[in-house]
Amino acid sequence: MRYEARLSGSGGQGLILIGIILAEAVGIYDGKNVVQTQSYGPEARGGASKSEVIISDETIYYPKATRLDLLLCMNQKSCDEYYLDLKKDGILIVDSSLVHQVPTNQVYQIPFTHLAKEELGKAFVANIIAIGAIAEISKVVKESSLTEAVLKRVPPWSAELNKKALSIGIEQGKKAAASLKLSRI
Amino acid sequence: MRYEARLSGSGGQGLILIGIILAEAVGIYDGKNVVQTQSYGPEARGGASKSEVIISDETIYYPKATRLDLLLCMNQKSCDEYYLDLKKDGILIVDSSLVHQVPTNQVYQIPFTHLAKEELGKAFVANIIAIGAIAEISKVVKESSLTEAVLKRVPPWSAELNKKALSIGIEQGKKAAASLKLSRI
Repeated sequence: MRYEARLSGSGGQGLILIGIILAEAVGIYDGKNVVQTQSYGPEARGGASKSEVIISDETIYYPKATRLDLLLCMNQKSCDEYYLDLKKDGILIVDSSLVHQVPTNQVYQIPFTHLAKEELGKAFVANIIAIGAIAEISKVVKESSLTEAVLKRVPPWSAELNKKALSIGIEQGKKAAASLKLSRI
Repeated sequence: MRYEARLSGSGGQGLILIGIILAEAVGIYDGKNVVQTQSYGPEARGGASKSEVIISDETIYYPKATRLDLLLCMNQKSCDEYYLDLKKDGILIVDSSLVHQVPTNQVYQIPFTHLAKEELGKAFVANIIAIGAIAEISKVVKESSLTEAVLKRVPPWSAELNKKALSIGIEQGKKAAASLKLSRI
């Protein structure tokens, strides 16, 4: 088993943080081997950000993601740029408040940033809503492990806010899955 | 040019944060190619933590550190375990408040945790003192880039504290270098 996830968007959206949270949830609490990576090159100067998580039952010799099982896109540019790296049956999840042109109809569209602002009054928890949705849709991490990992990495004053963001993400993941299923009939 | 650094110690010492800060300083502000990595395996369950930064002028195809140019050890266990991965002329820096047995006399010994507590009253900035010392000793990153990257990644209320921690690290790096030079005579 090897599972490759890429979390992409703009700098400042907290994609590195949710990469670390996902890696710690699966690596420390679920007991798998995980490598979590950020790469900086010319594109980083343009504010683009991507964070990768590779999960395996075995030792990971090659820690770069090349054929993605899961791709999260928090802006249009990352969706345009990375969609081709997604496997045929890979999971594409986009922030539909920021990504308006999707390359396929096999896509989970959730307005993470809009929900973070409207439901919680804090745009910066859009990333935590997204990681909740990822857990629900992909089943790659246990919800309890994810909650533990989130609470370990966020400031104590924001624990309740982040727990709410996770629940919204999980609930929205369910909704998006149901609506994608319907559209397939 | 390829430069491999590993920052190691216990979970909770902020080694992932300083890995990201070093990577962003060099990758975004100094304009090099950088890959920054965390690996989680059986050892992560014991609370061990390591964060790696690979820097290159060219595209990085293999993002794992195998022959270290620089090793930071913030506890005894990481020093015992990783010293053999250091190149012959590689730089070894240890937190001498926590690492009491060193494997060589070619070592920069700085009491990061002690300094953080005594000089700044906050043990948690030991990691920022360490990254300051790393910059001074290794010259792998510009001081101005490092300061920018630190200020981007820490909460605004702690900007002054972190700037002081960086200066202490730089000053201590100079001292440790001078004392290592003396011991070589």
